[in-house]
Amino acid sequence: MSSSGTAPAYRRLSVDERRSQLLATALGLFAHRPPEDVSLDDVAAAAGVSRPLVYRYFPGGKQQLYEAALRSAADELEQCFAEPHTGPLTTRLSRALDRYLEFVDEHDAGFNALLRGGSVVETSRTNAIVDEVRRAAADQILVHLGARRPGPRLRMAVRTWISAVEAASLIWLDEDKQPPLGELRDWLVDHFIALITVTAGSDEETAVLVRGALAMERADGPVGGLARRVLPVVGDAVHLL
Amino acid sequence: MSSSGTAPAYRRLSVDERRSQLLATALGLFAHRPPEDVSLDDVAAAAGVSRPLVYRYFPGGKQQLYEAALRSAADELEQCFAEPHTGPLTTRLSRALDRYLEFVDEHDAGFNALLRGGSVVETSRTNAIVDEVRRAAADQILVHLGARRPGPRLRMAVRTWISAVEAASLIWLDEDKQPPLGELRDWLVDHFIALITVTAGSDEETAVLVRGALAMERADGPVGGLARRVLPVVGDAVHLL
Repeated sequence: MSSSGTAPAYRRLSVDERRSQLLATALGLFAHRPPEDVSLDDVAAAAGVSRPLVYRYFPGGKQQLYEAALRSAADELEQCFAEPHTGPLTTRLSRALDRYLEFVDEHDAGFNALLRGGSVVETSRTNAIVDEVRRAAADQILVHLGARRPGPRLRMAVRTWISAVEAASLIWLDEDKQPPLGELRDWLVDHFIALITVTAGSDEETAVLVRGALAMERADGPVGGLARRVLPVVGDAVHLL
Repeated sequence: MSSSGTAPAYRRLSVDERRSQLLATALGLFAHRPPEDVSLDDVAAAAGVSRPLVYRYFPGGKQQLYEAALRSAADELEQCFAEPHTGPLTTRLSRALDRYLEFVDEHDAGFNALLRGGSVVETSRTNAIVDEVRRAAADQILVHLGARRPGPRLRMAVRTWISAVEAASLIWLDEDKQPPLGELRDWLVDHFIALITVTAGSDEETAVLVRGALAMERADGPVGGLARRVLPVVGDAVHLL
């Protein structure tokens, strides 16, 4: 097929195209190896160009390339959280988590190296990019919850859950990606429901939003399923009421 | 008072005493400032000794001193989790959390710098020490839950909650230590109850342990209080059952 048509076997890329190609190549390498194990020569070889050409586009060398690749990964990750504002909240959350966990799955070694800390390429800039993704995720969730001016307790609950998702993702990578992605997603949704519900027990703002969110859930959805699975566990504890 | 008695105004410390004194001084400085802002001269001045003397005890300079101070802080932190194996689980957890949060309060800047990542003194060794503390905390909780050979789902739940506690502590420091420590502790206990209970909904091992733990709780304890506060929030959602 490549011999038919008019496309040349080799074509000079524009500056933007070359930059994108180098970034995509670098992200592909950084996704599956710790940054320590990726050299500029590796990037040049994988992109089929010379090392000086990589330097022409990224004069700061590996560090600059890493930060640019992280920047593009962060943009991609922030897109994971974009979700239409219709339907039960847990359905939206499940879809966003699916995309997030697929991203973790596809960038396993890089995700692990970045978030475990202690990496040679970690700087205040890389930390700022990671924090920006966390903040974007929290903002999205608060908007979906209908919190226009979220108070400190609700914000803390959402931010804490996002850190818990990150931690669970790292544990999941440690455990050779067990349980299967779908089970991990469902458990993280259960975790969200649980955390937001107990927060509602001591924060009136959260209570109003949780009541509104529960009204939109369906018996055959995650909250209904969770309620039916948990009731037999707590059912014997009537002495606590 | 210092002029009375036979104690000399200045006394030569033994090697062990001097080492302990330098470590305690360093930990005091690293607790309240990011490691970037602590110099070996600061440690020497605060300990009332010369810089060469500090180097004699810590030839690796600031990095070695930092790691030794972190090591002693980690030992102290691991003691926080030691708790008699009697009484309701939430009472034990509350006491351990109180000690942990007091530690965070007393080492605020150092805790923040260490766990935010990107610090100049962060190495694979410092990360290993932090991970060891997390592991010790998880092991303690699993023992208190009565899990002799905890399965992967229960371990993931406990480890995820520990990361959530860490994240919430960092948010708490960010928010000028609001809400008050006692409220944060109670919310973290609520979070633990909630997470372990929803995990019980999809993991039989956890369900058995949760039933056992609930049987030991009292109506006037954290679980009873949580149940009474949460029921009015979820009470309208009968359509989900």
